[in-house]
Amino acid sequence: MRRRALGIDLGGTQVRAALVDADGAVLRRASARTDVGGGPPAILAQFARLMAEIGADTATLAGVGVCAPGPLDSATGTFIHVPTLPRWEGFALRDRLAADLGLPVVVEGDAIAAAYGEWRFGAGRGLDHLLYITVSTGIGGGVVSDGRLLHGRRGMAAHVGHFRMATDGPRCACGAVGCFEAFAAGTALDRRARQAVLDHPDSLLASMAATDPAHAGHVVEAARQGDAVALRLLDQEAAYLGEGITSLIHLYSPERVIIGGGVSNGLDLMQARIHRVIEETAMPSFRDVRVVRAGLGDNAGLVGAAALILFDERRRAQA
Amino acid sequence: MRRRALGIDLGGTQVRAALVDADGAVLRRASARTDVGGGPPAILAQFARLMAEIGADTATLAGVGVCAPGPLDSATGTFIHVPTLPRWEGFALRDRLAADLGLPVVVEGDAIAAAYGEWRFGAGRGLDHLLYITVSTGIGGGVVSDGRLLHGRRGMAAHVGHFRMATDGPRCACGAVGCFEAFAAGTALDRRARQAVLDHPDSLLASMAATDPAHAGHVVEAARQGDAVALRLLDQEAAYLGEGITSLIHLYSPERVIIGGGVSNGLDLMQARIHRVIEETAMPSFRDVRVVRAGLGDNAGLVGAAALILFDERRRAQA
Repeated sequence: MRRRALGIDLGGTQVRAALVDADGAVLRRASARTDVGGGPPAILAQFARLMAEIGADTATLAGVGVCAPGPLDSATGTFIHVPTLPRWEGFALRDRLAADLGLPVVVEGDAIAAAYGEWRFGAGRGLDHLLYITVSTGIGGGVVSDGRLLHGRRGMAAHVGHFRMATDGPRCACGAVGCFEAFAAGTALDRRARQAVLDHPDSLLASMAATDPAHAGHVVEAARQGDAVALRLLDQEAAYLGEGITSLIHLYSPERVIIGGGVSNGLDLMQARIHRVIEETAMPSFRDVRVVRAGLGDNAGLVGAAALILFDERRRAQA
Repeated sequence: MRRRALGIDLGGTQVRAALVDADGAVLRRASARTDVGGGPPAILAQFARLMAEIGADTATLAGVGVCAPGPLDSATGTFIHVPTLPRWEGFALRDRLAADLGLPVVVEGDAIAAAYGEWRFGAGRGLDHLLYITVSTGIGGGVVSDGRLLHGRRGMAAHVGHFRMATDGPRCACGAVGCFEAFAAGTALDRRARQAVLDHPDSLLASMAATDPAHAGHVVEAARQGDAVALRLLDQEAAYLGEGITSLIHLYSPERVIIGGGVSNGLDLMQARIHRVIEETAMPSFRDVRVVRAGLGDNAGLVGAAALILFDERRRAQA
């Protein structure tokens, strides 16, 4: 059996490729700025260049796993509608790439691929049930339940950013009001940070954000240095995360919740508060679920996509 | 292979038993008032009496499926904590019953068993992904995803009544504030109906509820006769259900949502509004999901519990 796979993470900004071995180690990787305007043909050419760059030889690969922002239909490997990737609507990437390369190809939503990567090689190794949440520009998720990746109709399960946790509140990127994502995503924290800078011009946070607009990264950094304004912002963020996670625990019953994405850099500062929300408001039998940081960092999607090939998840799902 | 199974539905009020054939037909059934005070020994004796009453012969049974209110650990068939069944905490019903009868036994949460029954024999037949929601005293649920029942840790997945859809609002039976259940369960509709009777003493609803306190059943009946007060109450109920279902669709991506429980008697009057909420507020690729009424009515849990045996779900889950 071929023991290496290629993982490709196709994002709205960057496209990255990595050669991943059977232990989840990234052997080589390369990246490029996504040629958004060029549509599928341009990006397929980028895939080929990145493969050449890392010396990926199709003769030695078990296959190619691609992850991309959703919603996409992972059952058929077809894009549905990706706001950051116009011109991809309806494009059957899996079949096209499989034909071009003569290899098995899996196409999966990026958060679901990351969940899979964390399960096989990261902070969820050995579990039967886990919930992965990426807290970044938006909030995405992936679920492993009963020892299997949860797909749902057209592979669209676990859009965890889009349950409504309030009947009013900020408008979400999806158009609705009150989504978990609208409260707790990195962009929501960015927005609150910018407001806090206006309200507290003498804070350390304000001085850090003197040259570019305040964002979540500044908040985490200032909080580590003890800035009270930043600590309050993180406490608020932790409360939103805790509330959202508490709801999701009741829905999926994971053994563990794994947090990835940019905001997870500050998870250590928020963990106590998140756990307190769970302990105080979840039903008793769910209160011991712990929330931990992702183990694979930025590589979760890339490694997870490759892992979908390495563990032959596609055939398992069809079994 | 033995082609019949016994289904037992152990509720806080009634315990029911049915002999179910391989097509999901209830051949014989019997019920008794649950001997709550007697605890496990008394109820095991009730099981035996009900089995005798319907002539269930262990020599011809494939096994026994029991469903009961959760949370219960369906992985081990052990009760965790059931508010309506004190003295059952930690009781290993599956192993005890299996030893007593010398038969395979499955113990499952009632809404999950009902979801299974609807999948195998009811409104979800032939689907790979469905969400079942029972709207009754509380709100419970069960999920089939990727052609399998979703269990999660300790079999506690799909506590769909307990995600928070608002940061304030009525207090839920679980102790938290803002749960879907607290807004949309039958008891919440009962409460709004009683208030409406006070506010509109000349309404048809008020006249129907002259002798006993207004409840959801009155609302549905009065609405069918065109009572404006009752129609408004159902419209409000439909809006809550639509909001909750929209969130849940993003989380599980079912092909269809199936509604059971007492409130589903009025689903035909609420369907248009529920669908409108989904069409207007779900993400585009989820908007075509339809909400239908359960096909097995009161028998969903009973038949579903037996079906867990008939389809050997226990072994499938372990595979």
